[in-house]
Amino acid sequence: MSIDAATTSELRAILGARLSFNEGDRAAHGREESYHRTLSPDMVGYPESTAEVAAIIRACARTATPVIPYGTGTSLEGHIAAVNGGLCLDTSRMNRVTEIRPADLDVTVQPGVTREALNKALAGHGLFFPVDPGADASLGGMAATRASGTTTVRYGSMRENVLNMEVVLADGRVIRTASRARKSSAGYDLTRLFVGSEGTLGVITELTLRVHGLPEAMSAAVCSFPALEQAVLCVASVIQLGVPVARAELLDEIYIDAVNRRSGLGLKTMSTILFEFHGSEGSVKHDAEEVAALARDFGAASVESATTQQDRNRLWRARHEAYYAGLALRPGSKGLVTDVCVPISSLARCIAETRADIEKTDLIAPILGHVGDGNFHVCFLLDPARADELEQAQAVNRRMVARAIEMGGTCSGEHGVGYGKAEFLAAEHGEALNVMAALKKTLDPQGIMNPGKMTDAALDLAHHVRGERPAEPAG
Amino acid sequence: MSIDAATTSELRAILGARLSFNEGDRAAHGREESYHRTLSPDMVGYPESTAEVAAIIRACARTATPVIPYGTGTSLEGHIAAVNGGLCLDTSRMNRVTEIRPADLDVTVQPGVTREALNKALAGHGLFFPVDPGADASLGGMAATRASGTTTVRYGSMRENVLNMEVVLADGRVIRTASRARKSSAGYDLTRLFVGSEGTLGVITELTLRVHGLPEAMSAAVCSFPALEQAVLCVASVIQLGVPVARAELLDEIYIDAVNRRSGLGLKTMSTILFEFHGSEGSVKHDAEEVAALARDFGAASVESATTQQDRNRLWRARHEAYYAGLALRPGSKGLVTDVCVPISSLARCIAETRADIEKTDLIAPILGHVGDGNFHVCFLLDPARADELEQAQAVNRRMVARAIEMGGTCSGEHGVGYGKAEFLAAEHGEALNVMAALKKTLDPQGIMNPGKMTDAALDLAHHVRGERPAEPAG
Repeated sequence: MSIDAATTSELRAILGARLSFNEGDRAAHGREESYHRTLSPDMVGYPESTAEVAAIIRACARTATPVIPYGTGTSLEGHIAAVNGGLCLDTSRMNRVTEIRPADLDVTVQPGVTREALNKALAGHGLFFPVDPGADASLGGMAATRASGTTTVRYGSMRENVLNMEVVLADGRVIRTASRARKSSAGYDLTRLFVGSEGTLGVITELTLRVHGLPEAMSAAVCSFPALEQAVLCVASVIQLGVPVARAELLDEIYIDAVNRRSGLGLKTMSTILFEFHGSEGSVKHDAEEVAALARDFGAASVESATTQQDRNRLWRARHEAYYAGLALRPGSKGLVTDVCVPISSLARCIAETRADIEKTDLIAPILGHVGDGNFHVCFLLDPARADELEQAQAVNRRMVARAIEMGGTCSGEHGVGYGKAEFLAAEHGEALNVMAALKKTLDPQGIMNPGKMTDAALDLAHHVRGERPAEPAG
Repeated sequence: MSIDAATTSELRAILGARLSFNEGDRAAHGREESYHRTLSPDMVGYPESTAEVAAIIRACARTATPVIPYGTGTSLEGHIAAVNGGLCLDTSRMNRVTEIRPADLDVTVQPGVTREALNKALAGHGLFFPVDPGADASLGGMAATRASGTTTVRYGSMRENVLNMEVVLADGRVIRTASRARKSSAGYDLTRLFVGSEGTLGVITELTLRVHGLPEAMSAAVCSFPALEQAVLCVASVIQLGVPVARAELLDEIYIDAVNRRSGLGLKTMSTILFEFHGSEGSVKHDAEEVAALARDFGAASVESATTQQDRNRLWRARHEAYYAGLALRPGSKGLVTDVCVPISSLARCIAETRADIEKTDLIAPILGHVGDGNFHVCFLLDPARADELEQAQAVNRRMVARAIEMGGTCSGEHGVGYGKAEFLAAEHGEALNVMAALKKTLDPQGIMNPGKMTDAALDLAHHVRGERPAEPAG
């Protein structure tokens, strides 16, 4: 779209030199870490305060100019693509840790603070923030996508760890979603409505988060299994027995090979579960023994423990870099990463049937997962120049999503919808999708907040299927 | 209001003899366990299926007849009062435990199943459902009020333990709010929007809930403190140090006296914390020792442990009956129970200042609380015939709520709003209250779902304050 001149000059008055029309800057803000194509915004703004964000939104609302909130651009489903152009609102300059309250185990931060920056600020207090998606994402972005990570099995996702947010609405009003109380029954749960809303309902300008005390003791166990199914069944059993593991991460033998190459870890090239245990010295030892016994029952070829912090750090760094290690298996490739999450009793079957589907293609597609939550990712390593590979991967993914939904699961455990997963929302939610669209319409009647994503995209596709109107986003 | 004859005959066609106009039945459904006055519905319906509920709602929607979902009537803030008359929709005949899935640690139930009935059904599977408000409430009602209880400090409230719900909307459409996946980023969080919505957005007709394995070991500790403040500071310290207690319940010396009288427990008549520990034999022992040491540091006069199941059962039964034990201190009295929840570092000061306020009155008002969550209840024992007592109690409560909000807390930790707490929503939520009202308007444009509660009541009061229209609900 072409941006109204009055809007531009109003934005210039608010942001001064922090409003950019530079082409490189625009392209960098229309591109994410996935296979989705770059769709650049018309301009990029770098606000420094809630008041600036509110003024920006009011200016954009007057001319229905799209606003796309932006954290670190590490989303995977086209979340930040400017499908209708407009203003990218980059929150990276709102990066202050406002207050750390050790006595309440909570912190208040601006949305541009990244999870690693927060953990650096917390370390001196003996505290940590557990939610850890692969990237060093911003906390505003993590809340907006309802991110989770390797410790969600124990500490929950952003859903459980956001206490309160300040949000600028689509008309410039500023609200607080809740208080700092650990629980409340006083009104509708606006916090959870905005967590996972992907910038489509408003801009998160401040977050109050739960933090946790560093455990007295930690240890890790590396369990290598001859067969992928054994590994998954072992984790299901650990969860069913209620062993309070802090992490239970699967890497298949392809990923193990990849991280061995990248990090020189020397792990057995087998399907592997990385467990971590948090607690007292005694409970950690007890949990580790219980898990080791279960792993042997399920046929583990080896169970090795890592109790020193150095060993554990190497292990988890390798795990966090697995996505990039995987891409390096095929230089120049782009990843299409799937994200289904199913009830844990169905997980082994879901993975096995998916693997069988993959084997019918000639794609390289390693699997890893937060299997303690029933969530796993297939990473298709695609040659961006070959449309046939993308088609094959999408076909496998579509079958996998249908399978997951049929098993009582979801198309997305943690990556979100953007426009990349919009095609699955109708099948997953049925009539509830129309309720979601009604909520969107209520809070953003002009459709200026991150347009073309989530319900916008899902209903466009639904109309397309029914032949009512074209699915292609404008711009 | 007078009910339209066509609506009545349509409801009769759906429900047959399960539609009641009996005066006793109506009064029983307009009365709850609190000091609020009885406001009877015009009729009571007892549906047995989702299809019946949907047909009922469609019939009522045609003539804008109010519908008030009803579980066990154990709410405390006028939630089920028929302020505009209409139909009380009693879900007690929808009481089937539909499916128990031990391998997924979840269950599906109809809304009329009570928490005790569910736990009876789960016991044979080695499972339990942790959320335990004082009453044997229905799970539909507990979800609707975002209930919590004594184990929320460890297992979370209804917010964390509802995975998915089936809901009949105000126009009769039936939706599912989510899947059975443990986590999802696929769309707005409708589950959390309906949890805590108090029947104002739709009728919950089915719930899928997380359940938990019975712990390998449990033990309890009874810590008696000469001063209330010592007890509260001890719990704050336990939480700050991250000891994973399963319960941390305060009863002040008046409540201890009351439960001693009722249950013959013979506890020291001092402010007391009842702790419970869940885990392995080793971790339970470790946690109990850590807490005992802390309790002594904070000046406990005694720390006694209860490791046998019989002892623990007596203790927790006494705790659950504390409300009734309190009422028995003043025969014929009605309770006005407050419910603020604050960040834990402010809890001791909040309780101390509240106690000082109480001491300026001549009311009997024992205090108990889920202090691990920062939540406590003052129970004013009121003579229903004395308006001055009610006024005094309300004045203390208003000061307490203002104090809690100023401390970053909430007017209601777990009881909800109904109409009884509506006066506090504007102060707690500010502009966000208008967002809540807009959501209500979107999902229930005619205002037929449990009218006169939550935002309806809060905005009526706000208009009243501004002199725009009367606050008194019609009917």
